[in-house]
Amino acid sequence: MSWNERTNLSMLTDYYELTMSQSYMDQGVGDKIAYFDLYFRHVPESGGYAIMAGVEQMVDYLQALKFDKKNIDYLRSTGDFSEEFLDYLANFEFVCDVWAIPEGTPVFPNEPIVKVRGPLIQAQMIETMLLLTVNHQSLIATKSSRIVRAAAGRPVMEFGARRAQGYDASVLGARAAYIGGAAGTSCTICGEQFDIPLSGTMAHSFVLMFDSEFDAFKAYAETYPDNTVLLVDTYNTLKSGIPNAIRINKEILEPIGKRVKGVRIDSGDLNYLSIEARRLLDEAGMEDCVIIASNSLDEYLIETLLMQGSKIDAFGVGERLITSRAEPVFGGVYKLSGVEEDGKVIPKMKVSDNFGKITTPCNKEVWRFYNKDTNQALADLVTIAGEDLSQTETYEIFHPIHTWKRKVLSNYEVKQLLQPVFVGGKCVYETKSIEEIKAFCMQQQTTLWDSVRRFENPQVYYVDLSYDLWSTKQQLLKEHGMGMQEMMHPPRR
Amino acid sequence: MSWNERTNLSMLTDYYELTMSQSYMDQGVGDKIAYFDLYFRHVPESGGYAIMAGVEQMVDYLQALKFDKKNIDYLRSTGDFSEEFLDYLANFEFVCDVWAIPEGTPVFPNEPIVKVRGPLIQAQMIETMLLLTVNHQSLIATKSSRIVRAAAGRPVMEFGARRAQGYDASVLGARAAYIGGAAGTSCTICGEQFDIPLSGTMAHSFVLMFDSEFDAFKAYAETYPDNTVLLVDTYNTLKSGIPNAIRINKEILEPIGKRVKGVRIDSGDLNYLSIEARRLLDEAGMEDCVIIASNSLDEYLIETLLMQGSKIDAFGVGERLITSRAEPVFGGVYKLSGVEEDGKVIPKMKVSDNFGKITTPCNKEVWRFYNKDTNQALADLVTIAGEDLSQTETYEIFHPIHTWKRKVLSNYEVKQLLQPVFVGGKCVYETKSIEEIKAFCMQQQTTLWDSVRRFENPQVYYVDLSYDLWSTKQQLLKEHGMGMQEMMHPPRR
Repeated sequence: MSWNERTNLSMLTDYYELTMSQSYMDQGVGDKIAYFDLYFRHVPESGGYAIMAGVEQMVDYLQALKFDKKNIDYLRSTGDFSEEFLDYLANFEFVCDVWAIPEGTPVFPNEPIVKVRGPLIQAQMIETMLLLTVNHQSLIATKSSRIVRAAAGRPVMEFGARRAQGYDASVLGARAAYIGGAAGTSCTICGEQFDIPLSGTMAHSFVLMFDSEFDAFKAYAETYPDNTVLLVDTYNTLKSGIPNAIRINKEILEPIGKRVKGVRIDSGDLNYLSIEARRLLDEAGMEDCVIIASNSLDEYLIETLLMQGSKIDAFGVGERLITSRAEPVFGGVYKLSGVEEDGKVIPKMKVSDNFGKITTPCNKEVWRFYNKDTNQALADLVTIAGEDLSQTETYEIFHPIHTWKRKVLSNYEVKQLLQPVFVGGKCVYETKSIEEIKAFCMQQQTTLWDSVRRFENPQVYYVDLSYDLWSTKQQLLKEHGMGMQEMMHPPRR
Repeated sequence: MSWNERTNLSMLTDYYELTMSQSYMDQGVGDKIAYFDLYFRHVPESGGYAIMAGVEQMVDYLQALKFDKKNIDYLRSTGDFSEEFLDYLANFEFVCDVWAIPEGTPVFPNEPIVKVRGPLIQAQMIETMLLLTVNHQSLIATKSSRIVRAAAGRPVMEFGARRAQGYDASVLGARAAYIGGAAGTSCTICGEQFDIPLSGTMAHSFVLMFDSEFDAFKAYAETYPDNTVLLVDTYNTLKSGIPNAIRINKEILEPIGKRVKGVRIDSGDLNYLSIEARRLLDEAGMEDCVIIASNSLDEYLIETLLMQGSKIDAFGVGERLITSRAEPVFGGVYKLSGVEEDGKVIPKMKVSDNFGKITTPCNKEVWRFYNKDTNQALADLVTIAGEDLSQTETYEIFHPIHTWKRKVLSNYEVKQLLQPVFVGGKCVYETKSIEEIKAFCMQQQTTLWDSVRRFENPQVYYVDLSYDLWSTKQQLLKEHGMGMQEMMHPPRR
């Protein structure tokens, strides 16, 4: 049983999805075929890219989508719904097409990362859960990838369960953190549910329970001689913790052919303590004993510590990862982009005085250009569905606002990013192991330029519109009196 | 079935709780009776107080705590546990005593808000879930109480499901927001599960689905003539949205004896738009039509809008409430405070170079003094369990560090805050309705001085230690070479 299947989440939807649906039914438009895009406008912490995550749980939700008698009775009790609508829900059968960019893919603002096509009522009703699922996991996968980048090859363990925003935040957050590159988690159920490697040794309370720190370490070493990792900062890291760890190695483990595997420092100046601890351990012949640091870490502190020459071999990261504390919201939105009339897609667009909130109309596709030789990602292009780039040899992209900014791409391979996950309501998603998703995420990040990967003021990766899509959007803007006027450099076809 | 019971959450625990427990068992100390306190050190956003929440879900978890065969098999597969320990888990029976401060109570740093007494292994193992549950819901209840205070009597609706950090964050976050004072939620399942009033009307996509804004409004008014709330900012709030709302009132609803109930503005300058919208509505004789505002609101923006004279009657608050965006972590900790030896409690304390991280030892109680006439909360006092304040007439409290700061309290009533929820593993918690909890929360906040309730630089409410508790802590500090030296003003007995 997957984590989502544990309960019926169909009622986890904003109430207006249901009241709108009732009204759609009343107006006889509930079965009109509509298109919706899920996308975001801004990478958290002004980063260069985000990591897509949450698709598997989105699929679980859609597969289980149904309304049981209790749900229907509750909805009836509100007095807001007709018996016809309640009947529709009671016999609900999901028939939409859904596409998603695979988990682990680096994604960028203003490109659809999920696309839905289906009867208006259905496509509308799933908005809340799609956003909730993708927003949460993409947020944490993105944060994790940042922290892992800062750690520069050293393992990062996710330690945040106790500070997560609820149970799913802990469990699915650990899953997303693993996809983003974390080496494991402290959250036991994630081992059981998702095969994520577990990590965990001792708390300060363990040390306090024994008459001395040495006794506590000894107890632990006796139980886990093959995996003795000692928390050394309960009393005094350098004067007590490290000397006791050295004694344990010498007096308890070496006689039985074992070694202390690591020490963890959870307070104080991690730079100074790690350097001094390393010196003491090395002097005692414990060069193989790793130093693990934890305590309010994030990518910024890790980067600084490593620049200062800290002797830290692995990091445990808690609340700042599991809540993405510096920016705890991934602002995905779900917008209507078109409606089918007589088999043709009529583009739909929300205009707004706020330019950034204007949507891009049409049934769309997303393509990524890779350099054929280096495999570097060159640009993403959003097209109207049906435009085929697979046979092109060169392609001129242009900035959708500053249209004189152009670039001719050549020597590329091009891939479609949106993959079908439901066709006519039937699930076609192929489950991947978490290891595959993580490996894919690691590999995909290597296709990005270093300038896109840095934390401060990263290069903005190109996400452009095809000429046809751009023109359609301009046309609709003009109809609202908002089109670009005489352009100095109208884009060429 | 309660929200927590939907799955077995027993494995939602940090792995070290289990590895420590194995080692406790190996050393024969697993059944020693230990005391743990759950408390926090800092109110989010430097507020004057927090709101306790999450007790009901903590109780659900503890009542359901067991390990099934699948859990045991998984744990066996790690190779980290003995068959004796796995047997213990397979036959797990919770026998701890647990006390908690009731949900909805204003709580303060450095006082136990949950206390656990029981066999070491059990009291240790529940750490993660107790923290996770109380941290999350107290965070959101606290944030909600801030936003509700800023709204100064106007209803605040929780609208954040799509931006929450996972499903529980959405559902239990809405529950906590309601306890903290929100008037309702958009999250349908919270109506069904917790009887929280629901709110929800239409999205921009609804307006876009029709040929015109007027047609969309008309469709909605026909479906919900008794609850017509119109989203007026899809095209242009003052030139299109409000005039169309006025037309709907006049042409569609008035002829059937109904009225437009409200309009919602979700973008633009909420101050200017609300004032102008109010003027237009009033001129059309729609003084009874309420104006609802949403879009990136929090207590700071709401306070400013109201100071500027915005004509807003109700607020919809999303991501900044459901994630407590400005500070998305409630830093509750769970610390060993004592161990029973021969029936006596041996106090335990974690010392630290960081003064704020030193714990307070002993099996403790928390008392709140209220002025007998005004019912104002005067101070909280943490005592050693067994100290009885109920018969005192006057009581001198003193600051635990600046001990010369003293105050003699009189004319008070005193209440114990920690209430038993489990006795010997048996649940004695009396379930309260969410309305009762919310009403209690509202009432309890009226006992606080205004100076404690303000957002900026609030007065620090007194949380002092009894003389006996203070002395015990001093004694232990001295044993670690850290006691206060010759004091100018040693506290009197």
